[in-house]
Amino acid sequence: MTFLEKLRAAQKRSQSLLCVGLDTDWRKLPESLKGEANPVLAFNKALIEATSDIACCYKLQMAYYEAYGERGIAAVRETLALIPNHILTIADVKRGDIGATTDLYAYAYQDLFEFDAVTVSPYMGFDAAEPFLRREDKGAFFLGLTSNKSARDFEYLELKNGKLLYEEITDKVREWNAPKQNAGLVVGATKPSELRALRERAPELPFLIPGVGAQGGTIKDVMENNGSGLALINISRGIAGASNGPDFAEAARKASMKYVEEMRAA
Amino acid sequence: MTFLEKLRAAQKRSQSLLCVGLDTDWRKLPESLKGEANPVLAFNKALIEATSDIACCYKLQMAYYEAYGERGIAAVRETLALIPNHILTIADVKRGDIGATTDLYAYAYQDLFEFDAVTVSPYMGFDAAEPFLRREDKGAFFLGLTSNKSARDFEYLELKNGKLLYEEITDKVREWNAPKQNAGLVVGATKPSELRALRERAPELPFLIPGVGAQGGTIKDVMENNGSGLALINISRGIAGASNGPDFAEAARKASMKYVEEMRAA
Repeated sequence: MTFLEKLRAAQKRSQSLLCVGLDTDWRKLPESLKGEANPVLAFNKALIEATSDIACCYKLQMAYYEAYGERGIAAVRETLALIPNHILTIADVKRGDIGATTDLYAYAYQDLFEFDAVTVSPYMGFDAAEPFLRREDKGAFFLGLTSNKSARDFEYLELKNGKLLYEEITDKVREWNAPKQNAGLVVGATKPSELRALRERAPELPFLIPGVGAQGGTIKDVMENNGSGLALINISRGIAGASNGPDFAEAARKASMKYVEEMRAA
Repeated sequence: MTFLEKLRAAQKRSQSLLCVGLDTDWRKLPESLKGEANPVLAFNKALIEATSDIACCYKLQMAYYEAYGERGIAAVRETLALIPNHILTIADVKRGDIGATTDLYAYAYQDLFEFDAVTVSPYMGFDAAEPFLRREDKGAFFLGLTSNKSARDFEYLELKNGKLLYEEITDKVREWNAPKQNAGLVVGATKPSELRALRERAPELPFLIPGVGAQGGTIKDVMENNGSGLALINISRGIAGASNGPDFAEAARKASMKYVEEMRAA
């Protein structure tokens, strides 16, 4: 099954575009998990059980697991084993390095951990991206226009050719996507009008859209401006942080349902 | 001791600009190490013992350790414990993410592993960089002009303001460096004339210069074009891969001495 087929099938089955962000901070877990052997894993397990029928994707922000040392790496493996096979998994790593190094990153996230996709920083250009695009069953989402304030520093720079930097990158990602249809773009939900323009510019690219909830984006804005384009809408804190009490999983499900209903209504 | 003081002291003591790259690939180790409990660690230990009197810095390319799973993470910790305190250590991670996530990366590489510095991808702008710059005893090297061919894709883009993208980034990194003198720039040794121009543009920034050896750059070109600016010249394969036999450490030392003599002669 190609990356695109898996993405489409997961969305059809869940009837949603919901990507649940598992950005699990070991320092901020509900008290009720403190007795667990690996509290991070226990948290993820409860969250997956509470949302796997309405999520089409889980995204693990690797910073949280790297900062937890070896236990974090073990938690990544074990979390992935708990996610049903028909649901997409993304390693949010934003890697990008010379080819020989990216080879290793591709091995790590595609073969060792067996994620379906990764996020990639495009700065170093194609040879830093290409190892992530060799397999047609694995995808790579490139940073296009990110959800943070300082996206203004470089992403919006005006080029001599009349484009903005993030537009130039989008055009390149379209080229990189052409051979195997396995590239996508990260576009922040916090920039609705730019999202609309990028959707017109790259109608065929799947978008990974973070920034709904804590960062200020809304489902309504995303749905209106993304239209019928392929998209994964990521929510992390809005779901995982819905409650910090023993009812965290139940609260996460309620929050997820609310987001999914907004998606379905649009 | 500030980051800059540590860098200067390490260079004075070693009388060199040599940064030894520990990009240790578990699949390509000398046969003689196959019986070791952690062959990656054993390789690094031998390399450190063979070079620590003439190196001012060790750089660990984290891709190699991430791809080795939990054993890799353990090897990072244990390798760092073997490096004498007066020598600088760099986590080559090229991270860069929204602030809340970069917080975690900064915690991981500065506090948990206790590296002296990291490499950072600048694409997402200042708020993605700032957590790495909070401590004056820790440094961050931002990707400026990288050593790979596809640096042409984006780094050389001409901006409407007349600069190239990597020049604009260099100017921003100078601003970010001003408060605590703890930012630096990655500049590939494969682009000598650009190195010279960047050195003039940012005389105060320490440069981390990869690309000598396997990638085609030479010490002579770097020394001529960097002049008297603060720089770390990274060599990975040219030292660690000098021999794949049981004499690998001895060969690594010979190769290192040759590079260091070229630096001292210049």
